[in-house]
Amino acid sequence: MATFVMQALGCEVSAINTVQFSNHTGYKQFKGRKTPAEEVTELYEGLKQSHLNDFDVLLSGYCPSAGVVQQVGKIARETRFASTTKPGAFFWVLDPVMGDEGKIYVSEEVVPAYKSLLRDADLILPNQFEAELLSGVTITDFKSLAEAIRVLHRSHRVPHIIITSVRLPHDTEQGDEPELSIVGSTADSDFNPRLFRLKVPAFPVFFSGTGDMFAALIVARLREACLAADLLTTAHWQSPDDVAATELPLAKAAEKVLASMHLVLKKTMDSRQEELEKMTRAQEFNTGIGEEADKDNEREKHLRLTKAAEVRVVRNWKDLVYPPDIEAFKAHAVNVELDANLPIEPDELGVVNMGTGHEIGQGAVHQT
Amino acid sequence: MATFVMQALGCEVSAINTVQFSNHTGYKQFKGRKTPAEEVTELYEGLKQSHLNDFDVLLSGYCPSAGVVQQVGKIARETRFASTTKPGAFFWVLDPVMGDEGKIYVSEEVVPAYKSLLRDADLILPNQFEAELLSGVTITDFKSLAEAIRVLHRSHRVPHIIITSVRLPHDTEQGDEPELSIVGSTADSDFNPRLFRLKVPAFPVFFSGTGDMFAALIVARLREACLAADLLTTAHWQSPDDVAATELPLAKAAEKVLASMHLVLKKTMDSRQEELEKMTRAQEFNTGIGEEADKDNEREKHLRLTKAAEVRVVRNWKDLVYPPDIEAFKAHAVNVELDANLPIEPDELGVVNMGTGHEIGQGAVHQT
Repeated sequence: MATFVMQALGCEVSAINTVQFSNHTGYKQFKGRKTPAEEVTELYEGLKQSHLNDFDVLLSGYCPSAGVVQQVGKIARETRFASTTKPGAFFWVLDPVMGDEGKIYVSEEVVPAYKSLLRDADLILPNQFEAELLSGVTITDFKSLAEAIRVLHRSHRVPHIIITSVRLPHDTEQGDEPELSIVGSTADSDFNPRLFRLKVPAFPVFFSGTGDMFAALIVARLREACLAADLLTTAHWQSPDDVAATELPLAKAAEKVLASMHLVLKKTMDSRQEELEKMTRAQEFNTGIGEEADKDNEREKHLRLTKAAEVRVVRNWKDLVYPPDIEAFKAHAVNVELDANLPIEPDELGVVNMGTGHEIGQGAVHQT
Repeated sequence: MATFVMQALGCEVSAINTVQFSNHTGYKQFKGRKTPAEEVTELYEGLKQSHLNDFDVLLSGYCPSAGVVQQVGKIARETRFASTTKPGAFFWVLDPVMGDEGKIYVSEEVVPAYKSLLRDADLILPNQFEAELLSGVTITDFKSLAEAIRVLHRSHRVPHIIITSVRLPHDTEQGDEPELSIVGSTADSDFNPRLFRLKVPAFPVFFSGTGDMFAALIVARLREACLAADLLTTAHWQSPDDVAATELPLAKAAEKVLASMHLVLKKTMDSRQEELEKMTRAQEFNTGIGEEADKDNEREKHLRLTKAAEVRVVRNWKDLVYPPDIEAFKAHAVNVELDANLPIEPDELGVVNMGTGHEIGQGAVHQT
């Protein structure tokens, strides 16, 4: 997913596969192999010895072990070091894949491994749960969300953050269903957040790979937006303080990304529906009786439904390259009054004060 | 290369990587790992258990061992068997990567392994040397070339063949330099060749991956041409006997493929030239003295030249999708008078009579 999407947008990709699986894990069964950390190292050494490691951007996604996380960090640091005299020449987009909706699905050592690397990242893409894990702030409302982002900016020195799936119980005053949104920020020179938010229409189906799709699209679109803003030779592509949240290249990039994704996922929904109708007509499922037959039937049904929901990204690459201009996917500023007394001070040692989140009450949210 | 090119042309690809290397071997140094045959088997079993093995087309390329070749053959045969009642529903494009210009660069057991699989392939893409290895016919002129193709059609029952790089010493009567061309054929119902030829403008630089690029493009373009000719439900997508060589879908596909490739390689040449000029300006190479410095210098130079010649396929995907209509890339019929007494009879056991090639003299070539 990530490789194809970046290529579709014109990026030359040196992919190091951290797994070679037969299929994504949403099928609940798969075969194949996780790449050991030593192999990641070896491949990187191979690139280096032939001077093929002059990357402009590193996108890191799922790492199957803390060892692989550390190795990826080593690659990022070395590449950054090689570009010391050229600010902005290297940019690391780190998607800290650890878990979702309160559950960690990697080994526990992966969490501190990611934490220790945050300082080297330019943009991180945690979901709400991962943002909690990394910041130590429990996110219950917009104020605590903003606080988590401030902690990541100040204590972990991450210049750009997008929290890729925010679902808060009381984020509208009308008492509507919890909406899905993404919330992003580029720190100002005081490490304070400039928060923006985009609503994401949720689909009633799980699509595998959308995290990687988002990350890959943001790589290409952020670089494009920063090129337009003449920021590619500025350290961390960080906008001047007078740039408002909704005018940030990160916000502009996110608008295009969501517009593309929405179209591809909508088309995927349609194709899925056609597949389901075909299946129903063909009466594809086992009609045997008894518990075993039911179990087999359920399993078969799950496999077919999962396949039907595979994101139709290849056939719809034009929607990636030419995103529609959709008013619904405009970034809005999020104005939260944060406490002047920061609960967590910038910490040069990278040690994070955990567990302050619970004490933060609900804040004022103004969406403009 | 192959995965991206097929995706760019709208194919959904389930890629099984037969190697994970840091870079292509043209750099003369690389790190990484060849996939063991058992892992290919395992990944295929994984696809199968979730019903993800309903392939329309299989493209097989470089296999690092005879074991992997055999495993690929097993995948092809099983997929073919599953589509027994649906002629044309499965098509195998086999690129028998073994060597070039008289040299074998795989282990020797790979050659018989490929031979035993030819009967299951729909289209094979050998270069001139590989065609000799598979047919047992030494290719010295157009008559022996045609004979090699007839042997592959008749004895090995391969319906479609393209010999991807033909360089014959006396292929023009003007005494010009040997030209590079591709020669293809779709057998008629008597297993006789229908030969066509396309000239390929040669570049004075080695580009790595062009074999895979050709194979991937031909997959998409042949299917497209066979769809247009309403052949996708005909066994092996084989055209009726009244279709002339130059009107074959294989010939039509090859025209588009070469037009796309030529444009991408021409742009690659230009980009390469720019890189070389940058290097010269920056005086990038070691200017130390002595034999060691020379050696280092040579090695560094080779690495940089190789990198500069990387095929610019990602940034030029539009040339893949929209091939220019270029008169120079039109297929021409090749009329060779072959002996009526076939030196090799169709052999249902798949045993091939080897070594007849040397006795075949130069034939008459008429290019129309």
